Amino acid sequence: MIIVLKPDATKEDADEILSQIAEAGLKPLYMPGVERTVLGAIGDERVLGGLHLEGHPLVERVAPILTPYKLVNREAHPDDAVIEIDGVPVGGKRFTVIAGPCAVESHEQMRASAQIAKDHGAHALRGGAFKPRTSPYSFQGLGLEGLKILHDVSETVGLPAVTEVVEVADVADVERYTAAFQVGARNMQNYRLLKRLGQSQKPVILKRGMATTAEDLLLAAEYIVSEGNRGVILCERGIRTFETATRNTLDLNAVPYLKQHSYLPVIVDPSHGTGVREYVTPMACAAAACGADGILVEVHHDPKTALSDGQQSLDAGDFAQLMGRLRPFVAAAGRDL
Amino acid sequence: MIIVLKPDATKEDADEILSQIAEAGLKPLYMPGVERTVLGAIGDERVLGGLHLEGHPLVERVAPILTPYKLVNREAHPDDAVIEIDGVPVGGKRFTVIAGPCAVESHEQMRASAQIAKDHGAHALRGGAFKPRTSPYSFQGLGLEGLKILHDVSETVGLPAVTEVVEVADVADVERYTAAFQVGARNMQNYRLLKRLGQSQKPVILKRGMATTAEDLLLAAEYIVSEGNRGVILCERGIRTFETATRNTLDLNAVPYLKQHSYLPVIVDPSHGTGVREYVTPMACAAAACGADGILVEVHHDPKTALSDGQQSLDAGDFAQLMGRLRPFVAAAGRDL
Amino acid sequence: MIIVLKPDATKEDADEILSQIAEAGLKPLYMPGVERTVLGAIGDERVLGGLHLEGHPLVERVAPILTPYKLVNREAHPDDAVIEIDGVPVGGKRFTVIAGPCAVESHEQMRASAQIAKDHGAHALRGGAFKPRTSPYSFQGLGLEGLKILHDVSETVGLPAVTEVVEVADVADVERYTAAFQVGARNMQNYRLLKRLGQSQKPVILKRGMATTAEDLLLAAEYIVSEGNRGVILCERGIRTFETATRNTLDLNAVPYLKQHSYLPVIVDPSHGTGVREYVTPMACAAAACGADGILVEVHHDPKTALSDGQQSLDAGDFAQLMGRLRPFVAAAGRDL
Amino acid sequence: MIIVLKPDATKEDADEILSQIAEAGLKPLYMPGVERTVLGAIGDERVLGGLHLEGHPLVERVAPILTPYKLVNREAHPDDAVIEIDGVPVGGKRFTVIAGPCAVESHEQMRASAQIAKDHGAHALRGGAFKPRTSPYSFQGLGLEGLKILHDVSETVGLPAVTEVVEVADVADVERYTAAFQVGARNMQNYRLLKRLGQSQKPVILKRGMATTAEDLLLAAEYIVSEGNRGVILCERGIRTFETATRNTLDLNAVPYLKQHSYLPVIVDPSHGTGVREYVTPMACAAAACGADGILVEVHHDPKTALSDGQQSLDAGDFAQLMGRLRPFVAAAGRDL
Repeated sequence: MIIVLKPDATKEDADEILSQIAEAGLKPLYMPGVERTVLGAIGDERVLGGLHLEGHPLVERVAPILTPYKLVNREAHPDDAVIEIDGVPVGGKRFTVIAGPCAVESHEQMRASAQIAKDHGAHALRGGAFKPRTSPYSFQGLGLEGLKILHDVSETVGLPAVTEVVEVADVADVERYTAAFQVGARNMQNYRLLKRLGQSQKPVILKRGMATTAEDLLLAAEYIVSEGNRGVILCERGIRTFETATRNTLDLNAVPYLKQHSYLPVIVDPSHGTGVREYVTPMACAAAACGADGILVEVHHDPKTALSDGQQSLDAGDFAQLMGRLRPFVAAAGRDL
Repeated sequence: MIIVLKPDATKEDADEILSQIAEAGLKPLYMPGVERTVLGAIGDERVLGGLHLEGHPLVERVAPILTPYKLVNREAHPDDAVIEIDGVPVGGKRFTVIAGPCAVESHEQMRASAQIAKDHGAHALRGGAFKPRTSPYSFQGLGLEGLKILHDVSETVGLPAVTEVVEVADVADVERYTAAFQVGARNMQNYRLLKRLGQSQKPVILKRGMATTAEDLLLAAEYIVSEGNRGVILCERGIRTFETATRNTLDLNAVPYLKQHSYLPVIVDPSHGTGVREYVTPMACAAAACGADGILVEVHHDPKTALSDGQQSLDAGDFAQLMGRLRPFVAAAGRDL
Repeated sequence: MIIVLKPDATKEDADEILSQIAEAGLKPLYMPGVERTVLGAIGDERVLGGLHLEGHPLVERVAPILTPYKLVNREAHPDDAVIEIDGVPVGGKRFTVIAGPCAVESHEQMRASAQIAKDHGAHALRGGAFKPRTSPYSFQGLGLEGLKILHDVSETVGLPAVTEVVEVADVADVERYTAAFQVGARNMQNYRLLKRLGQSQKPVILKRGMATTAEDLLLAAEYIVSEGNRGVILCERGIRTFETATRNTLDLNAVPYLKQHSYLPVIVDPSHGTGVREYVTPMACAAAACGADGILVEVHHDPKTALSDGQQSLDAGDFAQLMGRLRPFVAAAGRDL
Repeated sequence: MIIVLKPDATKEDADEILSQIAEAGLKPLYMPGVERTVLGAIGDERVLGGLHLEGHPLVERVAPILTPYKLVNREAHPDDAVIEIDGVPVGGKRFTVIAGPCAVESHEQMRASAQIAKDHGAHALRGGAFKPRTSPYSFQGLGLEGLKILHDVSETVGLPAVTEVVEVADVADVERYTAAFQVGARNMQNYRLLKRLGQSQKPVILKRGMATTAEDLLLAAEYIVSEGNRGVILCERGIRTFETATRNTLDLNAVPYLKQHSYLPVIVDPSHGTGVREYVTPMACAAAACGADGILVEVHHDPKTALSDGQQSLDAGDFAQLMGRLRPFVAAAGRDL
C-alpha cells in the first residue's frame, strides 16, 4: 500500500504512521519527496484496513497495490471454474443459453415460453416470481405461486430453472423450487442477501449493479464465496450512462476484464443490456465473441401481452433466429452451443 | 399518453391499439403523419400500464404525459409537508441538522460524537448499526448492540436518533430503538423493504441511489406512501459519474427539481456527496442556498480512528465551523438553524 | 411533434401555439386532457425548429416524433453505403482493418509499424501527426512533418493512410498527404471543422465524442453530409462512464443502433475503447460479431517506447494474434477479412 | 511516481526500469512485495512522462504522486487571482454577474436584453455570435455581424462584453470586438484554440467540458497559461450524466475542488447547468454559497422568441428576482454583489 501524505505532514507524522504499519506486521517504507512524502507498506496490505489510514487528516491519498478481493481472484485459481446448474455446466467448453420470460405470469404463459426455449436449444430456463419494479403500480410478480409454476414447468419441459431472489426471507423457498438463484442488479449490494446465499449450496447468478464497477461485482462475489458457496456466475447486464438510445449501456469490456481478474464464469444479459428487441441477437453474438460463457435472454411466447419487459423480449421466431446466428460465433470461439 | 407507431404499422394495427385504449376507458386519438402515425390516449394514462403498449412489436415509442407517481406529487398537495422526527420538524421554517458518526463503534465513541453534535446545535443524531460495505473485509457494524448504544446515547444527550435499516427482518428492532429509519442509497430500490417501512408509523429518510434519477427517487417514495406511511424525507447524497475527484457527484439540481415536483421535505448529505472533509461545509451551505430543508452530516470525535468514512467525517472543530458558516446562509434563505 | 402544456396554460395559450403550427404549414392538433393539454403538429416537424416552442414559458415539454437528422437517415437510404478510402472499401462484404501507431514519431517507427500492419493483413494505415493531448506537457505530434512521413510510408508499404485533423487550417495539408480524414472524439462537435470537411471529396472517419449519444454522432455526420461530402464512416470508440477499469466504456450497443438508424458504415476502435492491450483482441472480435464494418486499431513496432498510448498498442505478435482470432468471427458474420 | 509491476516481472525487469528512472535524474526506489514489486521515483516526476512507463508490457499501473499541472496549481500561488474583464474584477471580494442572451439575434434583441442585465446590476454582458449547435438545422449565430452588434450594445449599455470563440481563425475578430473570450464546453479540449488564446492578452472564460473532470479543466487552463496568458477564469457548467430531469448535472463539488487546487477564479453557469428556468436562481444562490466568484447567466428580453436556449433564459422579471434572491447569499459569503 502506498500512502501519500499532505504537504504539511511532518517527519513525526510520518513516523507515527510508519510505526502503525510495522505494528500491523508489514514492512514500512519512508520515501521523502520534493513536494510530498510517500510511505509504503509491504506485505498483505489488506490487514491495514483496520488502520483506516484514508481517514487520517494528514493523509492525502491511499493507493492499494493489491486487489481488495482474494477468494475470487484469478491469481489464486489459475483455472476457469465450471459451475453446474442442476447438471448444466456454465463455464468451460459449453456456451450456455438461459432463456425464458421476464416474469412468470401464468402456467400457460410459462409453459409456452419454456417450450420455445427448449425447442430451440436453450440449456436452462429463467422466469421471475419476485419482480423489483421501479413503479409501485407495475406488476410485481406472482411470488410463491410463481415459484411453483416455474418448478412445474421446469420439470415438464426438462430445463433447470433460475429465478431472482430479492429478500433473505425468500431464500428457502427459492432454493426449494429452483436450481439456481439470480441476484438482480438492484440487489448486487444487498450484502445481507449475499451472505445468506453464501450459506446455500446452490449456484448464484450475480448480476452487476447499474452503478457498480466490475471490481465492485467481484467484491460482491467475494461476499458469497467467503461464506462458503463457490458457485458464483457473474453476469454483465449493462450500466447506467447518459446514453438513452438503449435501456442500459452493455459494458462488454467487463467480460475480458472479469476473465482476467477472476476464474469465475461470466455470462451476459443482452436483453437488459440493450432493452431493444432488435439489438439482442447482435449483442448475444458479441458476447460469445469477446469470451463470455453464455447468455441470459428474455423469451416470451407473445411479447405483445408480456406484463413486463415486452419491448426487449424475443418471440419464437426471434429466438430461433438468435440461436441460428449465434451458432457460428460460438463455434468461432472454439465452443459448443 | 402518446404512442408513436413504427413506419410499417398499418391502419389496422392502429385501430387495434385505439380500441384497446377506448376499452381502458380513455379517449383515443388518431394522428396519421407523413412518416409516422401517432396515437394518443387522453385521461388517466396510468391505467394503460396494464396494456404494456411499449412491448408491442409495432410501437416505436411510448411517451407518457403525466408523472408516473401520484401520491407524492406536488400537484396533489400544493403545501410543503413538515415531517417530525420525535418532535424535531423537517421541512417548514426550520433548517434541520442531523449529525453523528457514520457507524456506531462503541458506547464511548458514540457518546463523544453525539455530544459534539448536541453542543454545536444539531437537531438529531445519526449513527449506523448495520453498515452495507463494498468489501466483506470492512467493518460491518455492531448490529443490534449498536442500536442499543444509539438508543442510550440518544436519551442521554437528548437528540432523537436516526439509523439505517437494510433488511425487512430488522425493521422491528430499528423501530423500537430509534426515532426514524434511514434507507441507504444501495437500498433505495429494495422494494420489499420500502413496502415494509410503509407499514410503520415512524418517518423514513430515503436516500437517492447512486444510479437513480430524481424521478426514480419519487417513485421509491411512492412505494412507502402508498402503503400508508406519509412520513418520507427525501435525501440527495450524490450520484455516480465519471468524476473521481470526489466520492460522488452531489446533484444539487435535484433539490429544486424535487421541491417543484413533490411536497416532501428534501435534505442533503454533503458528507457522502463529496467524500472529502474540506468540501462538506461549502456544500452544506450550498444545500441551504438552493432550498434544501436540512443536512445529514458525518461527525466523529476522532476521525483518525473512525472505522468507516473517516476521510469525510468532521471533528468537533470542523463541525463548529460548519455550523458557524452555515448560519448566515440559512438566514439568507429565510429560515432558522 | 407533441407539445405538452403546463397545467396553468389556458385555452387561449393553446390557440396561440396552434395557430403558429398552422402558419408553419403543419396540421395542428388539440388534445385537452385531465391534467395537461397536449398539442400535436403533423407534418415535417423540423420546420418547427424556428418556432422554439421549447422556450415558451407555458410549454412543459416538446417531444419530437421524427429523428432530427434527415440525410444520414436509414429511412431515406435503405441500402448500406460503401465508402472507399483510396480504393479500400469500408462497408459491404469486407471487414476493414485500419492499423498503425497512435502517433507518427519518426520515419523509422512509422515504417516499421506500417510493415507490421501490412504483413498481417491490414487494409489501411493510421498514424497521428496532430495529437490532441490532455496535458500540455505530453508529446503533441510532429505536425506537417508527420504528415509527410505518413505519406511516404503509405506509398512505400502500399496502404492508404488515414490521419486525424484537428483544425480547419490543417484541412488542406491533410487532404494533400492522406487518403482520408479522421475526426477525433474531442472534435466530434467542432462544427466548423465538420462543415469544412463536408466541402472535401475525401472520406471522413468520424469518431464518437466521449459524452455524446449515438444520435449526436448522427447529427455530427449530418453536418458533413449536408455540405456535400457523403463519405462519412462512423466510429464507436467508447464513452466516458464511472467505470475506471478501462479507459473508456466501449458502447457496442451503438453498432446495431447506428446500423438501424443510418446507412453509413460503422467501425469500432477497440484500442481507445478499452485502453488495455489484452482487451483489444476480444473487443475487435465482438465488433465483428455485432455487425461492425471494420476496426481501427493501434499497432506499434515497439509499444514500450511509444510516445503515446503505449499501454493499448499491439506489437507484431499481438497484431498477428488479433488477425488470427478475428478471422473466424468475420467469417461467422458472413464477411471477408 | 509509483510503478506497480505485473506479477511476472523479474528482478531484471525492475532493474531496467530503475536505471531509466535514475538516468532521468530521479531517485529510484525498489520495493519488492509479496504479490507485486513496486518501484518508486522521487523527484519531479513530470520528467518521467518521456519514459512512457505506462506502456511497458510489464508495468501494471503507474500512480503519479504530484498533480499533472504546475502553473495553475494552488501550491505555487497561495493567493487567489483576480482577473479583470475590462476593469470588472472576477475573483476577490466581488461576486461577478455576467448576463445576457444565449445568442446575438439582432441589434434590437441584444439591446433590450443588455439593458435588462444592466438595470438589475449585472457587471458584464454575454452574447454568442458563433453558436456550436448539435443540429445543422439549428440557428448557428450571426458570426462577425453578431460580434459588431455585441460591441455596439456593450458600448451603449456600458458593460464589457464576453463571447464564445470556436475557431483559431476567429480569435483576432473576437479579440477586437469584445473584452474577454469564452471557450465553450465542446471546445475545452480544442488544444490548438487554447494555445492561440494563450498568446492573447485578454482574459479567457474556460468552460468545463461535458465529459471532463475538474482536473482535465485545470490541464486545459494550463495550456493557456503555459503560453503566457494568465487571465483564465474557470467555469463549471454541468457535466453529462444519466439524469435527464435537467439538461446537465451541475457539479458544484467542483467549486471547492478547484478553489483548493488552483488560485484561478471560478464562476458557475446555472443556465446550462440546469437547462430549466425555474432552477437557475436556486443554483445561482448555491454557487455563491459554495465559494464561486460569480455566475454566467442567460437573460433574454423575450425568451418565448429566443432562437436558442429559450427554456433556460430569464426574462426581466426573472432576472430581477434572481438578483434579489442572490443578494443575501452573496452577503452571507462575505462578498459584494
